[in-house]
Amino acid sequence: MVETIQWTDAGVVMIDQTRLPREEKYVTCRTYEEVAEAIRSMVIRGAPAIGVAAAMGIALGVMQTPAETLDAKFGEICETLAGTRPTAVNLFWAIDRMKKVFASHRDLAIDRLRQRMIAEAQKIRLEDIAINMAIGRHGAVLVPDGKTVLTHCNAGALATAGYGTALGVIRAAVAAGKKIDVFADETRPFMQGSRLTVWELQQDGIAATLITDNMAGHFLRQGRIGCVVVGADRIAANGDVANKIGTYSVAVLAKENQIPFYVAAPISTLDFKLATGDQIPIEQRAASEVTHVSGVPIAPAGTAVENPAFDVTPNRYVTAIITENGVARAPFTESLRKLAG
Amino acid sequence: MVETIQWTDAGVVMIDQTRLPREEKYVTCRTYEEVAEAIRSMVIRGAPAIGVAAAMGIALGVMQTPAETLDAKFGEICETLAGTRPTAVNLFWAIDRMKKVFASHRDLAIDRLRQRMIAEAQKIRLEDIAINMAIGRHGAVLVPDGKTVLTHCNAGALATAGYGTALGVIRAAVAAGKKIDVFADETRPFMQGSRLTVWELQQDGIAATLITDNMAGHFLRQGRIGCVVVGADRIAANGDVANKIGTYSVAVLAKENQIPFYVAAPISTLDFKLATGDQIPIEQRAASEVTHVSGVPIAPAGTAVENPAFDVTPNRYVTAIITENGVARAPFTESLRKLAG
Repeated sequence: MVETIQWTDAGVVMIDQTRLPREEKYVTCRTYEEVAEAIRSMVIRGAPAIGVAAAMGIALGVMQTPAETLDAKFGEICETLAGTRPTAVNLFWAIDRMKKVFASHRDLAIDRLRQRMIAEAQKIRLEDIAINMAIGRHGAVLVPDGKTVLTHCNAGALATAGYGTALGVIRAAVAAGKKIDVFADETRPFMQGSRLTVWELQQDGIAATLITDNMAGHFLRQGRIGCVVVGADRIAANGDVANKIGTYSVAVLAKENQIPFYVAAPISTLDFKLATGDQIPIEQRAASEVTHVSGVPIAPAGTAVENPAFDVTPNRYVTAIITENGVARAPFTESLRKLAG
Repeated sequence: MVETIQWTDAGVVMIDQTRLPREEKYVTCRTYEEVAEAIRSMVIRGAPAIGVAAAMGIALGVMQTPAETLDAKFGEICETLAGTRPTAVNLFWAIDRMKKVFASHRDLAIDRLRQRMIAEAQKIRLEDIAINMAIGRHGAVLVPDGKTVLTHCNAGALATAGYGTALGVIRAAVAAGKKIDVFADETRPFMQGSRLTVWELQQDGIAATLITDNMAGHFLRQGRIGCVVVGADRIAANGDVANKIGTYSVAVLAKENQIPFYVAAPISTLDFKLATGDQIPIEQRAASEVTHVSGVPIAPAGTAVENPAFDVTPNRYVTAIITENGVARAPFTESLRKLAG
C-alpha cells in the first residue's frame, strides 16, 4: 500500500496528491513552512492525514529552532500550521497534542525534547493506522453483502496515515469475505474520487466504478447501492457532520431512498465544543478550482464562482457514526459522549 | 442573441456547442448524415433544439434525394435521425411531424414537395421560439423576486431554437423587473452549465454564479435560493420528468428544503404513450466523457465508469410543469392532458 506520509531523516515525505493518478511523486518537506504549504495546497489532504502532517511539521520546526529562541518561536510554528485549513478539527487536535507534549517536557535538554516531539509525531501516525483498522472492524459488519458501497471524496489510506476511514470499512468488509464493489463519486472540484479513491481501490484490487457527483442520486434510487460510507472533517457534539462538499446531498438522497448513511471517523474528529454543525467554519477555496480542471478552463473568463470546500450534514440523515471505540447511533449527543469516554 | 440553428442555402448552420465558450464557431451541415452526426456528437443538444435539427435534417435529405428513389430513401433518412439519441422525445415528435407533411404532400411535384418540407422545418424552428416566449410568460410569475434561481444543465437559447425553456422563464422574470440572479450547476460530465448556461447568461447581462453539481444541496439548505427551474427531455403522462443526469438529485434536495421545483418544457416534450417515467429509455454515453475533461484524463487509465446521460424525477418532487399553454400542477395525469388539449 502507498505511504501517505512518513518521517525521514531528510524531512517529512508525502506522496503528492495533486499529481495522482498521473504520477506517483513523493515530495520532501524540509521545514515547517513547507509542511504548512503542502497542507494548504492539498499536496496532502484528508482530516486525519493533515493532523499527522501538522504534528510532523511541529516536530520539524522544533528540531530546526535554536534552543534560545524556541519558546518564542514555538507559538509561531503552531499558529502557522493551524492557519492552513479551518474545517478539519483533527488538525487542531494534533497541534494541541503536540503543544501539551512540548509543555510537559520543556525542562528536558534540547536534544531530548526534540527527540520526544519527533517520537510523538511518529506515534500519532502509527496510532492513526491502528485507529483506522479498528474503525474498519466496527464498520465491516454494517456493510450489506452482495451490494455496492457508495463513497464520496477520498476517505482512504491517502486521507489518513494509512488504511483509511471510509475505505478502511470497505477494506475490512472485503477482508471479511463480503462480495462488494464500490461506486466512487468523482468529487468536484478537486476530483478526490476520480483521482484518488479509484486509484487507491485499484491498487488493492477492489472493484470500483467512477460516477459523476450528480449521478449518485440516480443510483441510490436504482436499488443497487447497499449503503453509503463517507469520512468526516469535523463532527459536532450532536452528530452533525462536516465533510467534503456534496456529502449533505448524498445523505439526503440516501435517506430518501431508505439506504443507510454511515460516517467513519476517529474520535479526534469529534468537536464537543460545538453544540451543532452550524458553528463549524466552512473553508472557501479559490474560484480557479471550479473554473478550471487540470489547468484547462471549463467556463468563460471572469465567471463568478462559489467554492465552499465542505458542507454540513444534519444528524437526522446520519444512520451511524463508526469510530475506533465502536458505533454511535442517535441520539448522538449521548452516544458520542459515551464512545469518547 | 446567439443563433443556435438556422436554415441557409449552404445547409443547416449550427453554433458548435462542443467548443463553447472557448470559441464561437459555426458549422454547416450539408447532408442529413452530417446533421445526424452533429446531434450524436452534441454539436447541437437540448431536447427542443435537436427536434429542430432533425426536421431540418429531413428537409436536407429530401432536397438531396432524386425523385425516383425518394420513397425508398425517406424512411432511411428518418431512421438515421431517429437513431441519434434515444431520450428526448422532441426528436421523435419533430420526425413524426415531418413524416406527416411528407405523406400528405407526396402527390406534389418534387420541387414543390421539397419547398414544403423546408418550410415545415423552418416553421418548427420559429414556432419553438414563440413557444419558449409563452413558457417564459407563464413561468415568470412563479419566480420569487429578490432571490436566486438555481438551474441545472442548459435549458437556454442554446438548447432550443432560441430564448430557452428554463432560461426563458428566467429571461421573462428579469424582463418583468424581478431582481434575481442565477446559480448554474456545472453539470458534469458534459459541462453544459459552466460552458453554456453561464456563457449564455453573461451575453444577456444576467448575473450568474457557477457552482459544482454537488454544491446545489448546500445552497438549497442555506435559504438563498427561491426556486429551481430546469428543462426536460421527456415527460411521461403522470408528470415524471426525464432530464439531464443530476436533475433528480436537485429535485429531492429542493423538496427537502421546501423550495419550489419547476420544469419548463413545450407540449412536444410530453409523451402520453408512457404512463410513468420508468418506461423512458435512458441514454448511456461514452466512458471518456467521465474519465476526461477537455481531453485531459482525471482518472486512472482503464477506470470502470457509468454514464447515464439522464435521470427520471418522479412527479412527487415536481411543483409545477410550465408549458406554452399554461402551468400544470398535481395531479399531473389530468392537468397535463388538459393543457395538451
